[in-house]
Amino acid sequence: MPPLAPHPDRLLPADPTIREIARSLYKAVAEAPIYSPHGHVDAGLLLRNAHFSDPSELLITPDHYVLRLLHASGVRLEELGVSRRGLPSDAVGREVFRAFCANWHVFLGTPVSYWFESEFAEVFGVTEHPSAATSDAIYNQICEVLTTEAFRPRALFERFNIAVLATTDDPADDLGAHAALRKDDSFAGRVLPTFRADIYMTPDHPSWISKLGGLAAGSGIDTGTYSGLLAALRNRRAYFKDHGCTSTDAGTADAWAIPLDDADAQRLHAAGMAGTISTDEAVAYRRNMLYQFAKMSMEDGLVMQLHSGVIRSHHKPTLEEYGPDTGHDLPDAAAYTRPLQRVLNDFGTDPAFRLVLFTVDETVFSREIAPLAGFYPSVYVGAPWWFIDSPAAIDRFRAAATDSAGFYKTSGFIDDTRAFCSIPARHDMSRRVDAGYLARLVATHQLSEEHAHTVAQDLVAKIPKETFRL
Amino acid sequence: MPPLAPHPDRLLPADPTIREIARSLYKAVAEAPIYSPHGHVDAGLLLRNAHFSDPSELLITPDHYVLRLLHASGVRLEELGVSRRGLPSDAVGREVFRAFCANWHVFLGTPVSYWFESEFAEVFGVTEHPSAATSDAIYNQICEVLTTEAFRPRALFERFNIAVLATTDDPADDLGAHAALRKDDSFAGRVLPTFRADIYMTPDHPSWISKLGGLAAGSGIDTGTYSGLLAALRNRRAYFKDHGCTSTDAGTADAWAIPLDDADAQRLHAAGMAGTISTDEAVAYRRNMLYQFAKMSMEDGLVMQLHSGVIRSHHKPTLEEYGPDTGHDLPDAAAYTRPLQRVLNDFGTDPAFRLVLFTVDETVFSREIAPLAGFYPSVYVGAPWWFIDSPAAIDRFRAAATDSAGFYKTSGFIDDTRAFCSIPARHDMSRRVDAGYLARLVATHQLSEEHAHTVAQDLVAKIPKETFRL
Amino acid sequence: MPPLAPHPDRLLPADPTIREIARSLYKAVAEAPIYSPHGHVDAGLLLRNAHFSDPSELLITPDHYVLRLLHASGVRLEELGVSRRGLPSDAVGREVFRAFCANWHVFLGTPVSYWFESEFAEVFGVTEHPSAATSDAIYNQICEVLTTEAFRPRALFERFNIAVLATTDDPADDLGAHAALRKDDSFAGRVLPTFRADIYMTPDHPSWISKLGGLAAGSGIDTGTYSGLLAALRNRRAYFKDHGCTSTDAGTADAWAIPLDDADAQRLHAAGMAGTISTDEAVAYRRNMLYQFAKMSMEDGLVMQLHSGVIRSHHKPTLEEYGPDTGHDLPDAAAYTRPLQRVLNDFGTDPAFRLVLFTVDETVFSREIAPLAGFYPSVYVGAPWWFIDSPAAIDRFRAAATDSAGFYKTSGFIDDTRAFCSIPARHDMSRRVDAGYLARLVATHQLSEEHAHTVAQDLVAKIPKETFRL
Repeated sequence: MPPLAPHPDRLLPADPTIREIARSLYKAVAEAPIYSPHGHVDAGLLLRNAHFSDPSELLITPDHYVLRLLHASGVRLEELGVSRRGLPSDAVGREVFRAFCANWHVFLGTPVSYWFESEFAEVFGVTEHPSAATSDAIYNQICEVLTTEAFRPRALFERFNIAVLATTDDPADDLGAHAALRKDDSFAGRVLPTFRADIYMTPDHPSWISKLGGLAAGSGIDTGTYSGLLAALRNRRAYFKDHGCTSTDAGTADAWAIPLDDADAQRLHAAGMAGTISTDEAVAYRRNMLYQFAKMSMEDGLVMQLHSGVIRSHHKPTLEEYGPDTGHDLPDAAAYTRPLQRVLNDFGTDPAFRLVLFTVDETVFSREIAPLAGFYPSVYVGAPWWFIDSPAAIDRFRAAATDSAGFYKTSGFIDDTRAFCSIPARHDMSRRVDAGYLARLVATHQLSEEHAHTVAQDLVAKIPKETFRL
Repeated sequence: MPPLAPHPDRLLPADPTIREIARSLYKAVAEAPIYSPHGHVDAGLLLRNAHFSDPSELLITPDHYVLRLLHASGVRLEELGVSRRGLPSDAVGREVFRAFCANWHVFLGTPVSYWFESEFAEVFGVTEHPSAATSDAIYNQICEVLTTEAFRPRALFERFNIAVLATTDDPADDLGAHAALRKDDSFAGRVLPTFRADIYMTPDHPSWISKLGGLAAGSGIDTGTYSGLLAALRNRRAYFKDHGCTSTDAGTADAWAIPLDDADAQRLHAAGMAGTISTDEAVAYRRNMLYQFAKMSMEDGLVMQLHSGVIRSHHKPTLEEYGPDTGHDLPDAAAYTRPLQRVLNDFGTDPAFRLVLFTVDETVFSREIAPLAGFYPSVYVGAPWWFIDSPAAIDRFRAAATDSAGFYKTSGFIDDTRAFCSIPARHDMSRRVDAGYLARLVATHQLSEEHAHTVAQDLVAKIPKETFRL
Repeated sequence: MPPLAPHPDRLLPADPTIREIARSLYKAVAEAPIYSPHGHVDAGLLLRNAHFSDPSELLITPDHYVLRLLHASGVRLEELGVSRRGLPSDAVGREVFRAFCANWHVFLGTPVSYWFESEFAEVFGVTEHPSAATSDAIYNQICEVLTTEAFRPRALFERFNIAVLATTDDPADDLGAHAALRKDDSFAGRVLPTFRADIYMTPDHPSWISKLGGLAAGSGIDTGTYSGLLAALRNRRAYFKDHGCTSTDAGTADAWAIPLDDADAQRLHAAGMAGTISTDEAVAYRRNMLYQFAKMSMEDGLVMQLHSGVIRSHHKPTLEEYGPDTGHDLPDAAAYTRPLQRVLNDFGTDPAFRLVLFTVDETVFSREIAPLAGFYPSVYVGAPWWFIDSPAAIDRFRAAATDSAGFYKTSGFIDDTRAFCSIPARHDMSRRVDAGYLARLVATHQLSEEHAHTVAQDLVAKIPKETFRL
């Protein structure tokens, strides 16, 4: 078996004519700075700038992409280092890594294998394919480089050429790490918070009341009433904006956004506080909050990201044993056109309002999101995300969305990752797939090569910067 | 930048082997006469045969494909010449045209850019890519050719080699333009009316009562009762048939077709007349009417076209300001198999009945429409339409529909256009994409080249003629 | 027209680089034994080993793939030899065959034409394309070979290189043919029963009571009560297991599986026996039974196959005239993630439980089935089936399922056929398409050629053997 060595033409179409065009397009953007307007890296990581300690803690345990397919193949989550019942895992890093390498075949053909090959080879210099036999050697090699200066978070940030990195943050967060990073003259990177207030929308969630308490403490505003909560959220949005935030994120079960009148909303808020709210009432409360969030975005100009249509924690026994984000959040059928009609009638043509729509149900790209973005100035087509942020799905996304929305009403790539070291591989993947897509349009004479170059370059800079108001 | 010059091989697959086969298939149909069994060109245009006056009035303002993406990019509809509150627009043609050209980048990769390039180059002889810098020159060039004899509607009709052009007409229309055209010995073209009675199905529509009045006047039959309305519609269908009509069209919110008994229908009709009909009752009335339309088609042999699943006028403020058909009709999730079960149980195997099903929700091609057309002799798969009448979507349509329905239970291409000058570009696109699709089947040895030639030629002549009973 | 001669490279991608890789992958599996874990061939066929008598009875009349598109093209079912009102058809085989050949053009581009070309050429040695003109000659040629020893069922079984053939059987079946085949030393083939108990789930089905009676007779257990029925089913599952059965199949209108408490289930059972059960109650009963079937699978380790989402006998007049399975079963929109949540919460991580999910609604591959199989150890992605078991759809399936489920959580190909002679053509199709899919991954450097070879070989042996516990 030849050594692990990602091919310079990987992901580019195989046809020689198209590949030649794609190469040229890709080459022009390959080294461009990375705009990462949506992700889950912790700002504290860059503030502390500590050495990463263990390859498995860095690459395996926190990545639900990896966990889920290993679990599906019979590996238990505790064998992968996942904390059980809140207790520290006693899994040994080397053994977790071996469980991953020994099951490498289950990832063949998936984006996980693609990212890991790029990351292993290009970030860590690994030259062997993962397997039970090579696991220890690869583990040792990564352990070793992690002790070097070049592999501390800030050095990687610079090496990865990240122009902007957005984090995801609770409204009650004091953004101390962000503030400290901005003040730190030794770090030139731009790290921005993102305002994510999902939990405050769900009065039947067990943590809702305690989260309201935290938000009250953070904002100095009583959140015991509905109007207080709205005021506290507005207060924190302003605080986030002062700390460089340009966008919010909302992850909801569905995209319905229907305003309640204040008295009804207050009544439901009180029922939530009293623990007497019904499921239907909680849904109505959540849908009103989504409407209010849109209204706030229209008022303060923070770009509203909406990621709807995921069923969270499908397997209750795993939730109880291992907690959330352990691989069993699952896609649901999505809808946007009807659910968002009220929001778009009220704010859809307001120049201050901007709404980026994401989905894990591919059918809505051509049926709903692209047509919405193809009429409403406020709406942008969010890049494929989570289950569909793969080479094949990104290509399908372009084919599905371009007809109605073109390129300039799409958001640019988002990596949505917790895996810091996978950021370059993910953005590189997107650039290659887009180069291939554009090259096919050129080779079939649907787009001039000159125009294709402009689009390819705009997709990695102008488009994300404008979409997210960076 | 090289001049604007559509490539002779455009849309044909890039692979040299496949392209060679596709070229040969395309060549055999490239010059074939155009059958356009579904469109929105006004018969009066050909009757009057007046010079077109202004490029923007001809190409931009009436085309919602163009309006919607410009609007989505921040251009206001009044800047594009759209009439506001019913008042004549004071937009200047040259400036409308510049708004279009200056935003040309938003159309890159979309079917609009494809059609315009073909149309600009092949109809008008334009050799520059649209841009702010070239806008005036292109505008002037088109203005100039529009004054020539060769660019009057009938000359274009002949040049476009249109064998049959179907218009879309209200049942109350006296079809005067059609009659005059048929009598006019100086015009050899075949222009057929299509019977479209949507408005008569919706008793909660503000214009329903006045439309009933117009229909009564046109038919000489009192439409104040349900049975009167049915009689008037039958009367007008016969009148349309006498004027060459071979098909009807229905555009409904959904495809449910459920008969009511006469007493219930009459009660709902009366409630509609009295303005007291509820939303649910109006839906029941509409679904009954769709069933009655199917029954009439079975009786008189007019081919029934059904275009369902579009949410009309999604943005109410734009509707109020600019009226309907201004770019915010949007696709909805579609279903046919359950909604049409009653109609198909009653008429589905009757040789007189024919039903062509269209969708803007691509998922139903493989799941519903092709399987229905793959069993019911009456059902045909309508070509992709509106949001999905693009090269990529037509190719997906063939891939999705052919397995269950083959080629001979599809309808042939329809252009569905208001943009007279785009007709050749649209049909040419379809011929190229079909040639490419067939060529891939040949190159992968799924279809002999001889059979592929037969299919390619049947798709542009025999198939539309038989499907629409032309 | 050149003779009918399936190309050795058929279905392999046209691009020379990819084709070369695909050829090599295909070559390595082309002659591999066939595992057919799901089909509808009658075990008695192999037991009796009688000569097939008539080409139409063998190839046309029993195959609803063929019937449906001929019917859709205006051929009446009685012309195709389908029994009407239970009476023997008086259609003459030669004329049935001519109706098929004369309409060959309607199959062009469909999987039916692909299978028939392979089968005609490779099984029967036919060298002419079907047409009205060639029909008699082809018919005669097939008649002639059918009289030879080489064309008796067992000889074909051996020639087809079938390692395992699973049939589909009623729980009340005594499996006499299976037992006799196993005892017959002159037949080395492995033929396994599959337990299919759909009818016992539907207390509003006209045959439910009589089927319960048959099951009671077969099991010696009174099925007049709900607990009796469960006991009888468990009894028969054990009996099937003793006869080599490794899996069950369930074909349900939807995938909801919701347990009832015993008292409620017993009450509904009694209502079914009394003929007083309502539609809603029958649905609740069926959904409980699906849950109980899952529970039994967890207990006894029989692999549970679930094929949901088909609307049976859409056209009632054809059902009444010609019976079921006559071409008008039609796909429905599918869902799995919500409907199966209870089953998967209860059994989804139990190593004994295994659930293979099939769909005829392609949208759920990427949205539901692959993500479920990508977390739950018990869940496998079933191969595309029925309306979507075509080259194009299998390729779309791989593209849609691989991202979340890889290759090793898919089931391997199933042919699901009643057409014994089409088995090799169907498996060969699958191997070619998978070779092409893998070759594209190799050519775009997403997968090493070594890994691709491993996967290609696992897909035709290790994967089906492990999935179905063969």
